[in-house]
Amino acid sequence: MEREVKLIQIEEDIRADNRKEAENVRTRLKETNTFMLNLMSSPGAGKTSVIIHTLQALKDKLNSAVIEADMDSKVDAESIIAAGGFAVQLHTGGFCHVDSYMVSKTLSEIDLNDIDLLILENVGNLICPAQSDTGAECNVMILSVPEGDDKPLKYPLMFRECEALIVNKTDYLRMGDFDMDSLYQRVKRLNPSIEIFEVSCKTGAGLQSWTDWLVSRVSR
Amino acid sequence: MEREVKLIQIEEDIRADNRKEAENVRTRLKETNTFMLNLMSSPGAGKTSVIIHTLQALKDKLNSAVIEADMDSKVDAESIIAAGGFAVQLHTGGFCHVDSYMVSKTLSEIDLNDIDLLILENVGNLICPAQSDTGAECNVMILSVPEGDDKPLKYPLMFRECEALIVNKTDYLRMGDFDMDSLYQRVKRLNPSIEIFEVSCKTGAGLQSWTDWLVSRVSR
Repeated sequence: MEREVKLIQIEEDIRADNRKEAENVRTRLKETNTFMLNLMSSPGAGKTSVIIHTLQALKDKLNSAVIEADMDSKVDAESIIAAGGFAVQLHTGGFCHVDSYMVSKTLSEIDLNDIDLLILENVGNLICPAQSDTGAECNVMILSVPEGDDKPLKYPLMFRECEALIVNKTDYLRMGDFDMDSLYQRVKRLNPSIEIFEVSCKTGAGLQSWTDWLVSRVSR
Repeated sequence: MEREVKLIQIEEDIRADNRKEAENVRTRLKETNTFMLNLMSSPGAGKTSVIIHTLQALKDKLNSAVIEADMDSKVDAESIIAAGGFAVQLHTGGFCHVDSYMVSKTLSEIDLNDIDLLILENVGNLICPAQSDTGAECNVMILSVPEGDDKPLKYPLMFRECEALIVNKTDYLRMGDFDMDSLYQRVKRLNPSIEIFEVSCKTGAGLQSWTDWLVSRVSR
């Protein structure tokens, strides 16, 4: 029985660079003074719930719209609309993340003149979305408590690429499997300036700090 | 305010077909009578925990080995080894899933003559791994209760590609957010013949049914 870990390294296959189109997206958004937020997480971490709470909290302050990206189904866009928000559904056709070309195509379907805040709900995935510039002004990720405090060790790029981390489902902390101090240490090692918000969409705890930060970030 | 969901469809960028190398992998595994299981899930659904329980349950019945695939870190391989298993760590170099070329390269590092059961712990991702044939004989996925019962609606391919679904973290059912009947209906609509095992790696519930099925599947 071997006791040491044997390591096999595979070279990265570089994706076609979509940075140029991302710059075009940023230019278009600047013309209408629209702030685009790219929200990323694992499947089921609570992106749609956070968006619904955010729209409700900001409805008297900002005109918002949502791009819901998914492999399939329209359930998330329908949830946003049922909650009174404006949403378009982007189907990525099997693609595991949103790139700037998809955003560019989607922007043509939205009247940006009316929109202060455009939230992109990326595909549920901690890997590929972190590698692709969408043209957003700001990347934010959600980690939910049941996923575990070890995720920064395994998906470091996602934690590096984000300005803010929302730790959602803090009502699950009472299950006792999650060490918040370890999470902070692991995250801050990767990204010392990241903002961290502990929230529960079920109880509403912590959401005010998140939306206050977002409003100040949009108007910066 | 528009009330209907607007849908933007992006054409799929077809990945280079790695099916031929997957067939080579299958041929190699057949020569040594090694059964390869490809285990997939979201980040944090409990792949490593299920593997550790499976190795312990089968240690007198089968010689097993584990390929731990991750973007980064060796924590999972170290966990397997600490639990007395044999594991090699595969770093995918930024790649979001394991393909058959990575498996092929990794097999060269393992003496397959001694191995009855080879478990591949794929990268934590519900999307890309479902699109890539690894050369495994059998695909199994884990869905953890905190991720929600709506996942089949959003990631249908993963549920279609698997012979068995392990619903893990059933100890979280008491949080009351998960409808098991809805899950079964959604899964069976995609994949009528899929086997479903409800387990909790924390309490041990349901794991015996899973390992019994696996043993019968290996010896089929």
